Amino acid sequence: MINENFLKLSNNYLFSDIARKVRAYKEQNPDMRVISLGIGDVTQPLPQACIKAMHDAVDEMASAATFRGYGPEQGYEFLRQAIVDNDLRPRGIGIEADEIFISDGAKSDCGNICDILGLDCTLGLTDPVYPVYVDSNVMCGRAGTMTDKGWSRITYFPVSRENGFVPQRPDKHIDIIYLCYPNNPTGTVITTQQLAEWVEYARREGSIILYDAAYEAYIRHEEIPHSIYEIDGAQEVAIEFHSYSKTAGFTGVRCGYTIVPKALCFTASDGKTSVSLHSLWNRRQCTKFNGTSYITQRAAEAIYTAEGKEQVRNTIDYYMDNAAYMHAHLSALGYEVYGGTDAPYIWLRTPHGIGSWGFFERLLHELSLVTTPGVGFGPSGEGYVRLTAFGNHEDCREAMERFARL
Amino acid sequence: MINENFLKLSNNYLFSDIARKVRAYKEQNPDMRVISLGIGDVTQPLPQACIKAMHDAVDEMASAATFRGYGPEQGYEFLRQAIVDNDLRPRGIGIEADEIFISDGAKSDCGNICDILGLDCTLGLTDPVYPVYVDSNVMCGRAGTMTDKGWSRITYFPVSRENGFVPQRPDKHIDIIYLCYPNNPTGTVITTQQLAEWVEYARREGSIILYDAAYEAYIRHEEIPHSIYEIDGAQEVAIEFHSYSKTAGFTGVRCGYTIVPKALCFTASDGKTSVSLHSLWNRRQCTKFNGTSYITQRAAEAIYTAEGKEQVRNTIDYYMDNAAYMHAHLSALGYEVYGGTDAPYIWLRTPHGIGSWGFFERLLHELSLVTTPGVGFGPSGEGYVRLTAFGNHEDCREAMERFARL
Repeated sequence: MINENFLKLSNNYLFSDIARKVRAYKEQNPDMRVISLGIGDVTQPLPQACIKAMHDAVDEMASAATFRGYGPEQGYEFLRQAIVDNDLRPRGIGIEADEIFISDGAKSDCGNICDILGLDCTLGLTDPVYPVYVDSNVMCGRAGTMTDKGWSRITYFPVSRENGFVPQRPDKHIDIIYLCYPNNPTGTVITTQQLAEWVEYARREGSIILYDAAYEAYIRHEEIPHSIYEIDGAQEVAIEFHSYSKTAGFTGVRCGYTIVPKALCFTASDGKTSVSLHSLWNRRQCTKFNGTSYITQRAAEAIYTAEGKEQVRNTIDYYMDNAAYMHAHLSALGYEVYGGTDAPYIWLRTPHGIGSWGFFERLLHELSLVTTPGVGFGPSGEGYVRLTAFGNHEDCREAMERFARL
Repeated sequence: MINENFLKLSNNYLFSDIARKVRAYKEQNPDMRVISLGIGDVTQPLPQACIKAMHDAVDEMASAATFRGYGPEQGYEFLRQAIVDNDLRPRGIGIEADEIFISDGAKSDCGNICDILGLDCTLGLTDPVYPVYVDSNVMCGRAGTMTDKGWSRITYFPVSRENGFVPQRPDKHIDIIYLCYPNNPTGTVITTQQLAEWVEYARREGSIILYDAAYEAYIRHEEIPHSIYEIDGAQEVAIEFHSYSKTAGFTGVRCGYTIVPKALCFTASDGKTSVSLHSLWNRRQCTKFNGTSYITQRAAEAIYTAEGKEQVRNTIDYYMDNAAYMHAHLSALGYEVYGGTDAPYIWLRTPHGIGSWGFFERLLHELSLVTTPGVGFGPSGEGYVRLTAFGNHEDCREAMERFARL
């Protein structure tokens, strides 16, 4: 017998639908140069510090004296310690190296974290939202059944211009809450005060927050938190996912990390026994994962060198120039524009009440521009499209010139 | 709430128990040189063809013109096609490139395959067995509860000297059957005729065989099958796992592949609807995985070049020299020795009816040799220890000299 929960999933995946439409357009219009502001993939090369580290690591694998076989499932100490020293301690976060699990990317761990949580947990997440949170829970049966209000066991927190993109905390108990800041897809951020209120909710309710910080490197404003652990008490209620994909262009080499604090416990079904999620996740990883490539981990370590930091900053500045340019240009054209100040995404309100897909089609067919329809991330994304800042400057500028022609 | 199935798992993991004992011995005997014939990790460097391919791929990542971001979740076409052309077509296997999913290693996929199968499936596996098959099913609740005969929903097929290490097909229906050949831990192989009988059973019963071929590169005898798909009709009943870890020393760089044929269907709970496992696994991978490192995939592709093939063959010959030396030497000392002719493992019967752990302790304390107690792989492994051929020649020879002193 199969896992029938899979049959509840729609056959279509947002980005494959878009790819199909773009392919058809290109076939019909072979002379048009299509510019993509669609999928969130980086375009600039890896930092030179990472390139050098990888060449060195490859050479180590060429000699028996320095060859590395199986590494620790949890990741190498050199990388876990570099994370503590650079990402955590300077922000006053007291997470230790053995609470960090190196992954092959945040997408894997955001999905796989489902393994250690009870199937009867209730879920809460923003609408719109990154589809992996929903689909991975549908697959294991935790999301319930699809109704006209969405999945029966998911509580949605709509975010839109009407509430300033600030999700409202629920007035009932929810076991597991997904939060992603800076947000994909809206490009908006959360303040320390707002985040503290979620931590307070989770502590009061005995809930767990799954905090996706994949875009934290794009934060420009001093007062915006980079990690949920900047909030007192968060170590007892939160798991946090990090990614080097957008930070340092690792989408093709695959590395990220997940923090599961030792202080984080969840109750067993008797409502009393408290179980360490750290030990459960460790057991999960030791059984179903064999560590991330040594070469990739050496590249990640190099991000934290002085040269690496400067090179990463330059690439992020490059993308954030695009974001600022799009924000200014589209605003000047009279569009309502959100995000893009502390995130590589612009969340653009469609003009004249056009639907997301309608505006997507106009941009594709009239301007040869690819975007992502907001409604693809959830019903509250209707009336928006997402633009990414990950292209090169020339394409970004030309895309904005085309917008002026609409 | 947590996933309470995790609480059913033993807190101890075989290889961590061993590591703890070895650490204690080393602390008490700092002057003794300990030789490990224990954990199955390779020691020889990567093939030069792979080293060169990785340097080239790293350089591609250093320039925007050749940079690669997200790759296909299923793996790059260049590698999938190389597998078809080299591993499959020459053996008469009609699997196509789009039925192959590149992974970050067989361990991940052996565990993750659980996601697409129904929780009420019954399981069958050999005893002794690779622990991942059992533990990943315990975690999702499919294994049932622990009894004095093992997990309540698992049927065990004992293999030992008494039945020539040939598992007996069950006389009842089982939904999912794990087979691993060349076998870990016993180092024994399966003949085409024996494998055909399992395929016939699965076709008759509507069962699925999960076939772990991680060690197929070690097969020396012409008549031993390298893939279950060498058997007619297997594409309709089998998923097969491959790994480059032992084939080409990829334990530290992480790559393997999984074949899910399009012809493979499983019934839904109505007992009638037939569902393609290929489309379920594809959906699982697109949602919870983001592909294997581009650099690693280029290394894997290089295994299939003329130089790569020769270098891989040389390394495997190197390890198999160890296996042959151990087999001959231990046999001459009067031990009962199994495996090691088409696999990098020797399955040694303990002398005088000593238990696995007892013999392990003697070898550690009297000879400073590390082995793996057979009983750690299951009750029928009692009275055996596993030796691996993955060390260097000098260590292997010295280990055998020490055996002569026992």
